[in-house]
Amino acid sequence: MIEDLWLIGIGTGSPAHVTGEGMQALRDASTILLPQKGEGKDDLAQMRLRIIAASGTAAHIVPFDYPVRDPDLPYQARVGAWHDQIAGRWQAALSRAGSTGPVALLVWGDPSLYDSTIRIAERLAPSPKVRVVPGITAIQALTAAHAIPLNSVNGPVHITTGRRLRNHGWPEGADTVVVMLDGECSFRWLDPNGIYIWWGAFLGMPEQVLHRGLLSDVADSIFELRGGSRDNHGWIMDTYLLRKV
Amino acid sequence: MIEDLWLIGIGTGSPAHVTGEGMQALRDASTILLPQKGEGKDDLAQMRLRIIAASGTAAHIVPFDYPVRDPDLPYQARVGAWHDQIAGRWQAALSRAGSTGPVALLVWGDPSLYDSTIRIAERLAPSPKVRVVPGITAIQALTAAHAIPLNSVNGPVHITTGRRLRNHGWPEGADTVVVMLDGECSFRWLDPNGIYIWWGAFLGMPEQVLHRGLLSDVADSIFELRGGSRDNHGWIMDTYLLRKV
Ligand SMILES: C[S@@+](CC[C@H](N)C(=O)[O-])C[C@H]1O[C@@H](n2cnc3c(N)ncnc32)[C@H](O)[C@@H]1O
Ligand SMILES: C[S@@+](CC[C@H](N)C(=O)[O-])C[C@H]1O[C@@H](n2cnc3c(N)ncnc32)[C@H](O)[C@@H]1O
Repeated sequence: MIEDLWLIGIGTGSPAHVTGEGMQALRDASTILLPQKGEGKDDLAQMRLRIIAASGTAAHIVPFDYPVRDPDLPYQARVGAWHDQIAGRWQAALSRAGSTGPVALLVWGDPSLYDSTIRIAERLAPSPKVRVVPGITAIQALTAAHAIPLNSVNGPVHITTGRRLRNHGWPEGADTVVVMLDGECSFRWLDPNGIYIWWGAFLGMPEQVLHRGLLSDVADSIFELRGGSRDNHGWIMDTYLLRKV
Repeated sequence: MIEDLWLIGIGTGSPAHVTGEGMQALRDASTILLPQKGEGKDDLAQMRLRIIAASGTAAHIVPFDYPVRDPDLPYQARVGAWHDQIAGRWQAALSRAGSTGPVALLVWGDPSLYDSTIRIAERLAPSPKVRVVPGITAIQALTAAHAIPLNSVNGPVHITTGRRLRNHGWPEGADTVVVMLDGECSFRWLDPNGIYIWWGAFLGMPEQVLHRGLLSDVADSIFELRGGSRDNHGWIMDTYLLRKV
């Protein structure tokens, strides 16, 4: 049984992204739940370990494995079942370890943004007291790396996914669009006229790559740059901002 | 002349929001430009001083005053002229102080979000090398305080201002809307049916106030709570998230 669950945003790659509150929470936690494998990305696991070490915490580190998604279920049911299983694994790992006291999880970026940890936590029974520690998002790492404002002056900002950009096109009335979770450079589906792109991959990490320009000029070179970087590194995470100019 | 200008996001009220990178940048800076008065909010100035002290920096603190906006100019020209004047004050303050080396400015929240510091920096001549250190935004402080996801599952997020919400209504196709820069509880202009609100003021600060509920149930109580909190404290900053349910 988990009474206190702390979801700690760790930023998007640089241990220096972690806030004072995040470091303190790691030290105050009794137990840290650490995903073991099944994430596929070994350097992300290393990053978590480096942050834990940097915090100087004496918390008990309890590993757990991610379950595999059942490919036979329809999408919504599959995600729901998967979240239930993860919650079950957290509980099983903690009871094997005999843990008591606050349990911490390190969450990539900010726990609120395109991340399922809060929703998984809601599936725990009995419900723990959930504390969320904010972290730097990929969006902020992108705008900081390019030293640009997120919004035009008092303008709106639309955050969306690659899939939605492909299926719905440029969002009605938007002047700034941020795209995440995009495996396909979905900006290639847009009419590039009058759109500027600021693109970044491995933001905050030593491998960080940036590119920017009018979409009509740079769409192809970003597509190639992304493919090459992904092949070199084994995987890639990228985020970009599009603005009407 | 400023060669290196560092804009350091400090989060929205809690010194514990500052990241490791932010604290390190404060220590590595030669000079910190500190707004003196003209912001109106004395506790915000205190917060900056507390963060500077917590960093243990030995940087030279150089104060500057905000100019007054010229009420006779039309809005765009007024903002432009004001930004030019602020850039001029930074330069004048630094040359009076005889400063050399990297100059740091502490920026509320994240420098990319509804903040003019990056645009002011672009008006400096000759152009400095601008470095942006990301910080926790009011949006993240809000979702963390309520322990909620920002987005629905893989859904889009629309960030806007109170004025735009009043003038344009619910953004076309949006399911999650975040509203900032709203002095008027502009959610009162919406049809409240089927909308849930998560509201927060003084996020991250000891005075933090939260409220949530169906807009049809809580719109009035948030309006009253906001008015009372503002009267008690002398000023208020609030942010809220609206979601179709
Ligand atoms: C599952 S979401 C997690 C987002 C995370 N919670 C955040 O606050 O940024 C993963 C997506 O975030 C973006 N992302 C995360 N880390 C990134 C990085 N270091 N560089 C570029 N994009 C990143 C990519 O768009 C990726 O597809
Ligand atoms: C000029 S903008 C600056 C935003 C800041 N750069 C950020 O990243 O959050 C000021 C607006 O931010 C929001 N805000 C900033 N600090 C806040 C706080 N502590 N609590 C609630 N809202 C806040 C309010 O909507 C306010 O009108």
